[in-house]
Amino acid sequence: MITGLYTDRYELAMVEVYWREGRADVPVVFDYFFRTLPYKGGFAIFAGAQTLVEALESFRFGNDELGFLRREGFDPDFLEFLRKFRFRGSIWMPLEGEIIFPVEPIARVEGGLLEVQIIESLLLNILNFQTLIATKAARCCLAARGRTVAEFGLRRAQGLASRWATRAAMIGGCVSTSNLDAAAWYGLRTAGTMAHSFVQSYESELEAFRSFAAVHGPETVLLLDTYDTLRSGLPNALIVARELAVRGIRLAGVRIDSGDLAYQSRVVRNAFDAASFPDVKIIVSNQLDEYIIRSLLEQGAPIDVFGVGTALVTGHPDGAVDGVYKLAVCNGKPKMKRADGLAKQTLPGRKVVSRYIDQEGWIRADAIHLYDESPPTLMVDPHDPTRKIKLGGLRPEPLLRLVVKEGEVVGPLLDIKAAAAYAKERLQCLPPEHKRFENPHIYDVGISPGLAALRDKLITEMMNGA
Amino acid sequence: MITGLYTDRYELAMVEVYWREGRADVPVVFDYFFRTLPYKGGFAIFAGAQTLVEALESFRFGNDELGFLRREGFDPDFLEFLRKFRFRGSIWMPLEGEIIFPVEPIARVEGGLLEVQIIESLLLNILNFQTLIATKAARCCLAARGRTVAEFGLRRAQGLASRWATRAAMIGGCVSTSNLDAAAWYGLRTAGTMAHSFVQSYESELEAFRSFAAVHGPETVLLLDTYDTLRSGLPNALIVARELAVRGIRLAGVRIDSGDLAYQSRVVRNAFDAASFPDVKIIVSNQLDEYIIRSLLEQGAPIDVFGVGTALVTGHPDGAVDGVYKLAVCNGKPKMKRADGLAKQTLPGRKVVSRYIDQEGWIRADAIHLYDESPPTLMVDPHDPTRKIKLGGLRPEPLLRLVVKEGEVVGPLLDIKAAAAYAKERLQCLPPEHKRFENPHIYDVGISPGLAALRDKLITEMMNGA
Repeated sequence: MITGLYTDRYELAMVEVYWREGRADVPVVFDYFFRTLPYKGGFAIFAGAQTLVEALESFRFGNDELGFLRREGFDPDFLEFLRKFRFRGSIWMPLEGEIIFPVEPIARVEGGLLEVQIIESLLLNILNFQTLIATKAARCCLAARGRTVAEFGLRRAQGLASRWATRAAMIGGCVSTSNLDAAAWYGLRTAGTMAHSFVQSYESELEAFRSFAAVHGPETVLLLDTYDTLRSGLPNALIVARELAVRGIRLAGVRIDSGDLAYQSRVVRNAFDAASFPDVKIIVSNQLDEYIIRSLLEQGAPIDVFGVGTALVTGHPDGAVDGVYKLAVCNGKPKMKRADGLAKQTLPGRKVVSRYIDQEGWIRADAIHLYDESPPTLMVDPHDPTRKIKLGGLRPEPLLRLVVKEGEVVGPLLDIKAAAAYAKERLQCLPPEHKRFENPHIYDVGISPGLAALRDKLITEMMNGA
Repeated sequence: MITGLYTDRYELAMVEVYWREGRADVPVVFDYFFRTLPYKGGFAIFAGAQTLVEALESFRFGNDELGFLRREGFDPDFLEFLRKFRFRGSIWMPLEGEIIFPVEPIARVEGGLLEVQIIESLLLNILNFQTLIATKAARCCLAARGRTVAEFGLRRAQGLASRWATRAAMIGGCVSTSNLDAAAWYGLRTAGTMAHSFVQSYESELEAFRSFAAVHGPETVLLLDTYDTLRSGLPNALIVARELAVRGIRLAGVRIDSGDLAYQSRVVRNAFDAASFPDVKIIVSNQLDEYIIRSLLEQGAPIDVFGVGTALVTGHPDGAVDGVYKLAVCNGKPKMKRADGLAKQTLPGRKVVSRYIDQEGWIRADAIHLYDESPPTLMVDPHDPTRKIKLGGLRPEPLLRLVVKEGEVVGPLLDIKAAAAYAKERLQCLPPEHKRFENPHIYDVGISPGLAALRDKLITEMMNGA
């Protein structure tokens, strides 16, 4: 589905000028970064790298695309040039599942001016969204404290967003999905139960449960709340659990989709335990998010699986990560966007990010520095030059790795399972104060003295030039 | 991209049971409706019908899909049955662009139990999202009071959601899009300017402006805020406007993407007017939504085009319309989902919606009634049986039209342009008190006395049965 048209018109308007002027190959560096953590949280989880790499492969212009652009008024010679277009630049990114923070470059893209500019909209569309959802999933999984979170969001996903939403949710820690399309595409585990309409389509709830169990046997999960969770759904589910047990089959679980989930799950758990069915899982759904999951567990609700839909796959209450893609170097010269305040200024130069780990393995700080600088031992708050942060006694590690080299994938790219495992491992190294939901401690991201000096020099030059 | 796998696992788990029991063709009626208007607003705009109809056409199971389902453990005989599956049911919907309200059926789907159930997730995914975005676009256009709203959201859209987001935004009233993929797919007008990186890639802003104008001539829109909107961007744009004028070309416009848009647009307008360029359009962008557009115009900002991105294509601050799909009739018997309160109960029976128009052409009320009832002259609040609403002197019109009859499209389906025109026309018939953003007047949606009686009868039966 992704072609060279998966972009904004202005990208082509700009690169047409570069092509006309013979500037297509001017060497440049662009940075992808975001300014604000989603959900007022203390961290984000990086996702979308594999999708981006695949999309770059299909970001080409064939006859259909060129025919459309011709009708849109683009120069035919320029379009013949686009026919041969292929991204031949280089991209540095973290591993998918990595913990990331505002201000620091999350992707550094290098190559010719034309190719690096033209992929802007594509890159932003993919990384902004998948990072939003992976972060939401990680928050839900943190709240679930080791219990299973299942992604149930297809019906409320933003249309075709569903496939990538599922992908990112799995990287963030979800264990299964209801979405067959995404599962087939990415090779994921699926889960599903039944709808109220299934139960209603039978003369009685008990008949519906028996019919489902007759076909699905040990995979049977019964929906309890079509008529009355505790007075109808629960006793009928117990009957079916006993009938299955006679045949040597265990009922897999029950789902509750309305009402007081904390209270009902306790009653249901007690009833199944009392009937010697301690293995029957309790699954809940109904407008869940990380806060409701937390609340349910704080109340001691004996829930095994949280089915999360709308809030997870749309990233509600946030609609997007505010990632941007900015020119940092053009033809060897460092560039920055001037703005009224430091908060919206960009960081010039070819930069890398060093992540600092303490002796106990905790992730403590990230320093943005110039490519040819060693990891600094002291850094400056990028928004407050008077605040210095010492990095003594910490071990630096590079955050960004070369993933695409002159158009060829050179790795490392993790598959979804590996990325999910990596996210889990990294979250265990992030101090708890960054993981709480209310007023999380702000993780230290700073710039090296060398980078600060370069920025100050450029600001002075721009002030003098203006 | 849409196949029979564009669904939740539980749909297939349920319909496998129906197939096994020979119940696939039991006649049923399902209703699609939502409970809450998005954005705390007073109306929603229906969108997605054409997309749904096309998706139903490709909702099939080929070798790839069946191979996946075999690995997922579905019965091979069932899968051979699915190979021949095609939706042969009937769907009634409003025209795209229609104004719609909570509780009332927005789509009524009739057919065999299996085919009507299996399309649930697909239908919800499409109609929920496109209605969310068309409604947001309509709100932005209302705020813009006739000025142009352009959709600029690809980079912040939820991944592949972008194509349908653009479609729905155009139905809601946007006039152009930056998204080339959607424009090519749907035949839409595109618009675009330049990025800050374009300007920065040149030695000077003036050089960048001249280069762009040399290639794009009368389509040139210059971005003013890379360095300093009023002290650098504006004077340079004036130079280029004069240079173009010498060649008999008019500068199309300028864009401002940061800072105080109200103040800057006034200064820019005055400068271009004073230089005898009254035709140069002023385009603004930067985190716009309906509230900021309204505020800018209240301040008298002389803005011609609002470029709206994130909030429009993601429907922020809402992530989804909470539409659901519920069984209303099974095998001739009316069905409803019981719930603790009237708010979450569903309405039983085969229903239609009559919309009531007054003598001046205003849309005044919608009545949900049974298919074989005439439009009522009195209706009842569905959530408050003591509240009666009189419909005397109003002319009823049917809201839902037969769009798909036994699997065949029988229309009417509007193309995007016609749907946008229809939305505009219908919004002009909606009284202003429903269109305001703060505490809009609640539009009357009621149920006929006959439907109320049916509902009460079923509740009584369920109470006695439980």
